[in-house]
Amino acid sequence: MRAVDLIRRKRDGKELSPEEIDFLISGYMRGEIPDYQMAAWLMAVVWRGLSRTELAALVEVMRRSPRPLRLRHLPGPRVDKHSTGGVGDKTSLIVAPLAAAAGAYVPMVSGRALGHTGGTLDKLESIPGFNTRLTLDQFCRVLENVGCALIGQTEEIAPADRLLYALRDATATVESPYLICASIMSKKLSEDLDGLVLDVKTGSGAFLKSEKEALFLAELLVETGRSAGVRTVALLTDMDQPLGQAVGNALEVAEALDVLRGGGPPDLRELCLELTGWMLTVAGLAGDIGAGRQQAERLLKSQAGLEKFRQIVGCQGGDVRVVDDPRRLPRARHQLEVPSPRGGVVAAMDCEKIGLAATILGAGRARKEDAVDPGVGLVVHCKRGDAVAAGQPLVTLHYNAEDHLEEARRLVLESYSFADVAPGRPQPLVYRILGA
Amino acid sequence: MRAVDLIRRKRDGKELSPEEIDFLISGYMRGEIPDYQMAAWLMAVVWRGLSRTELAALVEVMRRSPRPLRLRHLPGPRVDKHSTGGVGDKTSLIVAPLAAAAGAYVPMVSGRALGHTGGTLDKLESIPGFNTRLTLDQFCRVLENVGCALIGQTEEIAPADRLLYALRDATATVESPYLICASIMSKKLSEDLDGLVLDVKTGSGAFLKSEKEALFLAELLVETGRSAGVRTVALLTDMDQPLGQAVGNALEVAEALDVLRGGGPPDLRELCLELTGWMLTVAGLAGDIGAGRQQAERLLKSQAGLEKFRQIVGCQGGDVRVVDDPRRLPRARHQLEVPSPRGGVVAAMDCEKIGLAATILGAGRARKEDAVDPGVGLVVHCKRGDAVAAGQPLVTLHYNAEDHLEEARRLVLESYSFADVAPGRPQPLVYRILGA
Repeated sequence: MRAVDLIRRKRDGKELSPEEIDFLISGYMRGEIPDYQMAAWLMAVVWRGLSRTELAALVEVMRRSPRPLRLRHLPGPRVDKHSTGGVGDKTSLIVAPLAAAAGAYVPMVSGRALGHTGGTLDKLESIPGFNTRLTLDQFCRVLENVGCALIGQTEEIAPADRLLYALRDATATVESPYLICASIMSKKLSEDLDGLVLDVKTGSGAFLKSEKEALFLAELLVETGRSAGVRTVALLTDMDQPLGQAVGNALEVAEALDVLRGGGPPDLRELCLELTGWMLTVAGLAGDIGAGRQQAERLLKSQAGLEKFRQIVGCQGGDVRVVDDPRRLPRARHQLEVPSPRGGVVAAMDCEKIGLAATILGAGRARKEDAVDPGVGLVVHCKRGDAVAAGQPLVTLHYNAEDHLEEARRLVLESYSFADVAPGRPQPLVYRILGA
Repeated sequence: MRAVDLIRRKRDGKELSPEEIDFLISGYMRGEIPDYQMAAWLMAVVWRGLSRTELAALVEVMRRSPRPLRLRHLPGPRVDKHSTGGVGDKTSLIVAPLAAAAGAYVPMVSGRALGHTGGTLDKLESIPGFNTRLTLDQFCRVLENVGCALIGQTEEIAPADRLLYALRDATATVESPYLICASIMSKKLSEDLDGLVLDVKTGSGAFLKSEKEALFLAELLVETGRSAGVRTVALLTDMDQPLGQAVGNALEVAEALDVLRGGGPPDLRELCLELTGWMLTVAGLAGDIGAGRQQAERLLKSQAGLEKFRQIVGCQGGDVRVVDDPRRLPRARHQLEVPSPRGGVVAAMDCEKIGLAATILGAGRARKEDAVDPGVGLVVHCKRGDAVAAGQPLVTLHYNAEDHLEEARRLVLESYSFADVAPGRPQPLVYRILGA
């Protein structure tokens, strides 16, 4: 078997066997297949796609680890939720403790902010002391004790994905639904799960802007999860505007705490109930989504989710006083309101621009190696369908440095479109549910 | 400017500016852009192609050299011929001395056998002592003295092509008409030419099997040559069967000498007259192809081409006695006739199989680093349209080792298709002439 022949076959749109996929990825991991051959193969995959058999084989070899997570000894079902990324999406901070409070085990391996989107790890790290870099042993101990732990990808979790992702990032081969699916599922299937809920975002603030693309990825994800024996559900959800109001790390933690306390923005609360409901359903802790949602609502009302969040913060080294007093979170020194240039109704938002505005204020990263500023970001006051008067604040920017303030303000203004009357029908929060 | 953004743009089918192409290739040459980014870009080019502007820019930066050839001081026009490669194609050995005998200067940078095709350098090196590895200074001196010199690509000639070709070879990115054109033209335009004749092969023994693909490459080549200010003509010629009868290095040199002496197989002689006629035409030494062909015929008859060949051999260190006594060329120890399995008419040949048969006997290379055996090969006795009796020899194999003899015999037999009656219309030798 020669790598160049396998590249040629994929280039010509032919199918590789599972053994050939294994040869490529294992050879790459051993350093026998060089970066340049893998890069050419990845670009050929972006071009030609993968068959379901190829995709399953790729995920299978990518999730391989010298030290795989074994969680079958846990006394409850293991379940996780993964989002493809968006603006203001802090649902992980809410649904993970809720599901754990319901008796599930949530071994959540999360990501960081990149591009215009936020990352769960950066949000958690805005809590003073919170440690997302646990060893695998520490991770398992927190999981056993609390029912939930949240960490970043380690050396042991899907090592091929780490290597491949870095190469894809440098060779413009990230944007393939097949490779995105393989990357997500190689990590998630490393968590030794019973059930998995995928939140596939679509709209102007998502990586996959079109519903068609998002739907296709959702289908791939569900098929891949199921073919690996994990109960998998994917929700296609709206990212045409930020989720909730807060965008930025500490701001989002505070908003997540609001929801866990029973309040918070209605769209965020609603999506968290839906996601938690599905998590409990695929975990077998609820008979159906209706029962799952009811359970989630009870856990919000009883503040059991908040209590679980406090335990997680405590076990992962964070300052638990934050839970009751979010003013202890880092805060930006300055605020600036961005007033509406006209009266009318918000017709649409270019949600990526809102994400970029927060990013350039320091909430996100232009490059992987950049640090984030935990306190900065923005709060969105007016969303789709809201009536506004001229001069009324659309957004409040939270900033520390003046450098990019004007650019952020411009991005916010550009992101809003106005109309004279409200749109006929409100856009749904959840478009489709797959695999239910 | 970042390489990854340029890869992404090409991946998405967008056009790069000449400055961006320059950034990529120059950066790669300086080692600032790694192999893996170049490999991904190359695969994106195989996928999306290049615009004419991109292609011209790519050729321009690829032909750059720290020490470019300067040949304008020569007292006659500079002209060359290049073939895209075939089986039994020894025309360079004939047309280069003929054109030089007519007063042109032919600074021919040639290639080696690869895959199922032969290479001019390997053929020439079957002449004892013949040195194709001249320095650029030696090359110029032979050219000045004799009007023709034949060498391989040096460090100075299109260095970017050398690097890129090796990478393409390892990443299955050879087969793009745009990249093939850039590779050919970066070398040929390095020869500081007035005129260029391209022999684009099509058919079962060519790299580009379909006439459509070959025609497209021919168009690219002509456009690229012209946009660089070189009078360029491309001939689309038949490679559905071997050219002439001999396939293999010394065997082909002997056949080329037959033609230069006024004999040789009619198809080979005819194509050489046509190619030489066009070389003299684009060089301005003949008013049109008719006059060019007449001149070429006179030079064959007067044996001026043979005389020129003798001078080239002498100046490049070869044994000139070979010219009058081809039995001094290396010869295989054994011969084996492959008889026809049936009587009838040869309907078609799978010409690549003939090339492969010669290659596995040792005339060609499976890998670049392999050595060729100068004496081995085969002689084709029956070609398309020939009537054969059962048991009549189709091909004589010339071999030194038994290892691959049976496989070669099988390939030869597989390459022939028979019919009961002759095909209606003979296939032309030259399908199209572009740029005339």
